[in-house]
Amino acid sequence: MKAVVCSEGKLEVADIPAPKPGPGQLVIAVSRCGICGSDLHARLHCDELAELAAATGYRNFMRSHQRVVLGHEFVGEIVEYGSDCRKRWQPGTRVVALPIVRNGRDPELTGLSEQAPGGYAEQVVVQESMTFPVPNGLATDHAALTEPMAVAWHAVRKSRVGRNQPAFVVGCGPIGLAVISMLRAAGVKNIVASDFSPRRRELARRCGANVVVDPNLESPWTANPAKGRISGVTDILNLGFDTMTRLRSIPKLPWWYLFRLAHSLDAAPGGPVVFECVGVPGIIDQLLTDAPPLTRIVVVGVCMETDRFRPAMAINKEIELRFAFGYDPGEFRDTLHMIAGGKVDPAPLITGTVGLAGVDNAFTALGSPEHHAKILVDPSSSSSDV
Amino acid sequence: MKAVVCSEGKLEVADIPAPKPGPGQLVIAVSRCGICGSDLHARLHCDELAELAAATGYRNFMRSHQRVVLGHEFVGEIVEYGSDCRKRWQPGTRVVALPIVRNGRDPELTGLSEQAPGGYAEQVVVQESMTFPVPNGLATDHAALTEPMAVAWHAVRKSRVGRNQPAFVVGCGPIGLAVISMLRAAGVKNIVASDFSPRRRELARRCGANVVVDPNLESPWTANPAKGRISGVTDILNLGFDTMTRLRSIPKLPWWYLFRLAHSLDAAPGGPVVFECVGVPGIIDQLLTDAPPLTRIVVVGVCMETDRFRPAMAINKEIELRFAFGYDPGEFRDTLHMIAGGKVDPAPLITGTVGLAGVDNAFTALGSPEHHAKILVDPSSSSSDV
Repeated sequence: MKAVVCSEGKLEVADIPAPKPGPGQLVIAVSRCGICGSDLHARLHCDELAELAAATGYRNFMRSHQRVVLGHEFVGEIVEYGSDCRKRWQPGTRVVALPIVRNGRDPELTGLSEQAPGGYAEQVVVQESMTFPVPNGLATDHAALTEPMAVAWHAVRKSRVGRNQPAFVVGCGPIGLAVISMLRAAGVKNIVASDFSPRRRELARRCGANVVVDPNLESPWTANPAKGRISGVTDILNLGFDTMTRLRSIPKLPWWYLFRLAHSLDAAPGGPVVFECVGVPGIIDQLLTDAPPLTRIVVVGVCMETDRFRPAMAINKEIELRFAFGYDPGEFRDTLHMIAGGKVDPAPLITGTVGLAGVDNAFTALGSPEHHAKILVDPSSSSSDV
Repeated sequence: MKAVVCSEGKLEVADIPAPKPGPGQLVIAVSRCGICGSDLHARLHCDELAELAAATGYRNFMRSHQRVVLGHEFVGEIVEYGSDCRKRWQPGTRVVALPIVRNGRDPELTGLSEQAPGGYAEQVVVQESMTFPVPNGLATDHAALTEPMAVAWHAVRKSRVGRNQPAFVVGCGPIGLAVISMLRAAGVKNIVASDFSPRRRELARRCGANVVVDPNLESPWTANPAKGRISGVTDILNLGFDTMTRLRSIPKLPWWYLFRLAHSLDAAPGGPVVFECVGVPGIIDQLLTDAPPLTRIVVVGVCMETDRFRPAMAINKEIELRFAFGYDPGEFRDTLHMIAGGKVDPAPLITGTVGLAGVDNAFTALGSPEHHAKILVDPSSSSSDV
């Protein structure tokens, strides 16, 4: 079969043997496979990523000298089952699957390991237990967005953002846009998005941001339509004074009750939630410096380099940093059904489609933010222009 | 009155005018005032701290050229009330108070600002609304520990640690020891403490740590008595596979129920909680490297310098960093009553007492971890040895 093979940083279409499903696995014919920012990064820096993955317990992450088929955001049709399968769905059924397979007890990251070739190919192997049928009526293009939208859904769930809490999305690449869409789907009312690119700001608005900001011209913090009363440490202290003075002026309640109340009032004055979707060195410290006290920052952008920050700034403001990665199978399945049910619309993210021969061009195009967000690979297409 | 004045990094006993209470304020005669690590730091690096405080909204933090009376962990007896007070307590009543006062609408940090002289003095001004009577029977020495114990109680509350969740306390200085005591008071069953100093490890055990570790000889992570099943990213992926395979083998439940269940099972496999009580550059990245996935790190130690860390390590492990600072009035009051009620015993923390003339020696003694944890200042004492 044809596949795009990545080796020594080069992407080339090659003829490789068709994959065989192992126990509990099936082979699907790829209809679409999205190109992810991680793929762009892995192409050039996979050796560093492999070191990091090994340090956290995964030893088979791709290396630059290997021949790896990238692609982990795929939708396709069932071709054949391996042994030990429940065979719940007929061949030809459209499915999506989490990009992980299991060789014995060893999990492998599909599309990011030589052990598990990915979806820039005519066929890919998936695990039956991690496979989900695509609901009728859901466009194949949209089903291909399940994986990146699940990343965003996981980040939004991890943030525990309230509907009335202001949400800031910093960086409107594909993940930032997906986060905006998922915040909207979760009913969050005030979504402020910032990006230097006019094109991406336009997409942010289409995904559901109420306010879009060019950080060259305006600070997202002052553009906040739901600006809170807490803009500095002094405000927190004053909140404490006001609460205590007010409580102590109520003579009829027992003291312990008053203090319980003060306790709960003071405990969570509720700062904004920020989604860091840029992933370059310095951005976290900049957020710590600019964000109001009690901000919760969910870090979704992956900064691969060593970064610098000032812990004392985070301490003085009682900031929380929640690092988000991937999703669980339940979130993946929920995302698929949110897209199918029209709760979230991935359409604004999709800006182009290419065949296997166009993957190299697409990687180049995605390097600049001015034109594209998500480009899909369609192995049946002969297009190489984006 | 006599007070210890800090200026240009020097500490000297001086005669200064007795303080006058403003509206809503009262003067107390200091019985004891604890020496805090922040005081040691502020003595030498207050100009940097002042820059940082100004950046977060507080402009009156002490500067090295000013003449400042340090001390923000005090207990004392009421001497006189200012105007606009409710005068709930008789003069002579023993009280503790939060170390913040209010000049008009402007809050000031008592003992860390020239505008609000602190407790290394015969008298100090406090805000009536932030003052709490010391319950009968509570030793004055122990009441003086309310403030640092409240810092620890805030950190423990912020961690949302469960009783059965393993808790690691890294660094057993006064705050680390206070955190151990408060974890014990909160019913946490498995507390692992680590410190290079044998003296501090002994104190950690007295405060309630089940396991104490010398990080030169042993890793706190392998010493964990409640070791979880999640030691690497691969374990998380396998947990997902096992859950999905198990759920899909149950034929009688509806699919949506199975996935809801998978969702909740996968969402929080529950890593340990770590309290970072060291506050030196490099410690956060070391924790990110060594801690298991899904660890929640509560940063209580204040690292004043710019630090380096690898965001990608935190992302791969989905680690959470919660920076903790201070406490709210409800937590302060709860801490006082936890000490008075015997729920928590601050006795192991107290390792010495000096008079005002001994403060300079005490600062020197606290610079090395081998002898002291908390030294109290007793303005009526003439002792200068620790």
